Amino acid sequence: MTKPNPTACLLIIGNEVLSGRTRDANLQFLATRLGEIGIPLREVRVIPDVPAEIIEAVNATRKKYDHVFTTGGIGPTHDDITGECISAAFGVPWEAHPPTVAVMAEYYAGRGTEFNAARMRMATLPRGATPIANAVSIAPGYTIENVHVMAGVPRIMQAMFEALAPSLQGGNPILSHTVHARGIFEGQIAEGLSAVQARFPALDIGSYPFQQVDVPGSGGVALVAKGTDAAAVAAAAGEISALLRELGAAPVEGEPT
Amino acid sequence: MTKPNPTACLLIIGNEVLSGRTRDANLQFLATRLGEIGIPLREVRVIPDVPAEIIEAVNATRKKYDHVFTTGGIGPTHDDITGECISAAFGVPWEAHPPTVAVMAEYYAGRGTEFNAARMRMATLPRGATPIANAVSIAPGYTIENVHVMAGVPRIMQAMFEALAPSLQGGNPILSHTVHARGIFEGQIAEGLSAVQARFPALDIGSYPFQQVDVPGSGGVALVAKGTDAAAVAAAAGEISALLRELGAAPVEGEPT
Repeated sequence: MTKPNPTACLLIIGNEVLSGRTRDANLQFLATRLGEIGIPLREVRVIPDVPAEIIEAVNATRKKYDHVFTTGGIGPTHDDITGECISAAFGVPWEAHPPTVAVMAEYYAGRGTEFNAARMRMATLPRGATPIANAVSIAPGYTIENVHVMAGVPRIMQAMFEALAPSLQGGNPILSHTVHARGIFEGQIAEGLSAVQARFPALDIGSYPFQQVDVPGSGGVALVAKGTDAAAVAAAAGEISALLRELGAAPVEGEPT
Repeated sequence: MTKPNPTACLLIIGNEVLSGRTRDANLQFLATRLGEIGIPLREVRVIPDVPAEIIEAVNATRKKYDHVFTTGGIGPTHDDITGECISAAFGVPWEAHPPTVAVMAEYYAGRGTEFNAARMRMATLPRGATPIANAVSIAPGYTIENVHVMAGVPRIMQAMFEALAPSLQGGNPILSHTVHARGIFEGQIAEGLSAVQARFPALDIGSYPFQQVDVPGSGGVALVAKGTDAAAVAAAAGEISALLRELGAAPVEGEPT
């Protein structure tokens, strides 16, 4: 029996996602990358720019999961309150971080830009935090205990995650094998698929119908076997393909295009 | 003082979103539509196909919010466990719903399709639930108390929501006014914007930087005033535009394109 993988939770902080203004683009990136490094994402919460909500969510999830990632709210404006809230959640001061102040002061001086109070907020971190320097933004993300605080802008968030990832103690990568077939309905395959799941209890077998709206009759089902055991994933996918053939369908490797 | 709006929470149920396989397409639709009918979305959770997690999330959120919407997990396969979990959360039996059984039996008979055990799962509802009949899927969503259970497939979910929406007691629509300007940074406007927020405490003033990666120098800031008071939203947007002009920028109505 292999050691179970560490787990992750993502907190997406921002009114703009809850209002529909912004379509989140970070969940899928992090879900995929975390699966690859064996720290599967187990929960996501999207929460508003409200201190009590942020503090409660950080404290609830940092106890429950091995890693908590946050996105959003670390810029210079009044609605960027993640830093204060993380500090409050940990019960530590939110204070100027001298090495970050020095790096940012040099950066702004070199551009003739004022390092004003708003920009100083981005050099202000919870006491005990370790900055996540990155190639895209001069303002860093940071880690405090098992909480990793990142930007909401996808390009910056991705740079922060990739700077952080080598330091994370990953587990076994989550392997995935997808088979799809057209002209078959979930209601036909459900019973057989349930038996496959029962034979591979350590795997996660999923069934996802698809339909091309413009092409009548082109729909079908995509079936996914996921897990950390490569042999079991391959064996389950083989059983799923056999099941599809028994039902008269033609299984095709991969997701439908 | 107008009556405060009712609030909403969305539970996205499905391993496929947490693994990165599927990019959720329901959050933004529901966020936008709920804002329009004055039941703003205050929280979203994405949770796995694990009964204890689903039951806990349903019970935590149905007490906290006026409405809880769920998407996903109401199909015929073994990983579609939302119905059992909603029943367990409410402490009621999960049982065949005779009117739904009749409608579905007639539908399948008309197509010469077997109404098998897997498909019967879709006619099995928590006791006391009211089906949400819709134009797209024969299998209904349903409402039990303040929890609205919908499909994960966006086209079906949207049909269920639109069938349900007229029966929801909405509040005041959330109005939004966006102004953007290029060649300006959040660090320049933060102080003035904070003063605007302070003058309009009932509004939600947001600042969102944008950048066209391919066009250097094309970046800027989009500033959003949101609230239920049309006069206040317009006044705040006017102050934001004036602030941008003071800083030498040229405010433009709407989101950047």
